Amino acid sequence: MPEATYFHAGCPVCVSAEESLVNALGASVDITRVHLGEQPAQIGTARAAGVRSVPALVMNEQVFHINHGASIDDLGA
Amino acid sequence: MPEATYFHAGCPVCVSAEESLVNALGASVDITRVHLGEQPAQIGTARAAGVRSVPALVMNEQVFHINHGASIDDLGA
Repeated sequence: MPEATYFHAGCPVCVSAEESLVNALGASVDITRVHLGEQPAQIGTARAAGVRSVPALVMNEQVFHINHGASIDDLGA
Repeated sequence: MPEATYFHAGCPVCVSAEESLVNALGASVDITRVHLGEQPAQIGTARAAGVRSVPALVMNEQVFHINHGASIDDLGA
């Protein structure tokens, strides 16, 4: 099963994307969900993967920013 | 099977999103793909659904703009 990481921050835009798009994708992709507000140590990992805002999905070494909940610069660290 | 519409314009950002994210989502969601450059009559439908740029996925009456390929205002009509 392919893998992906969903970076979010619990924001309304993040929750909305997770409940429909990300959950549907989960049927065929193994998705690791990372809440950057609760796991700030992962912010560096997200940045290194190219994440500039949340919610974002990293898959096949590509970043897909989905709408705009918050800039990663506003999440601290 | 849930349904979604993927609005795109054949742009590099659109193709990249389609090849990984959208194709993976296709395993569990019935996706209609609409190329707004080739089907400009659908631009009004996309706008009415809330699409402001492509690529975008409309699912559960929500719009998910995925990165930014082109503004819908630049696609004519």
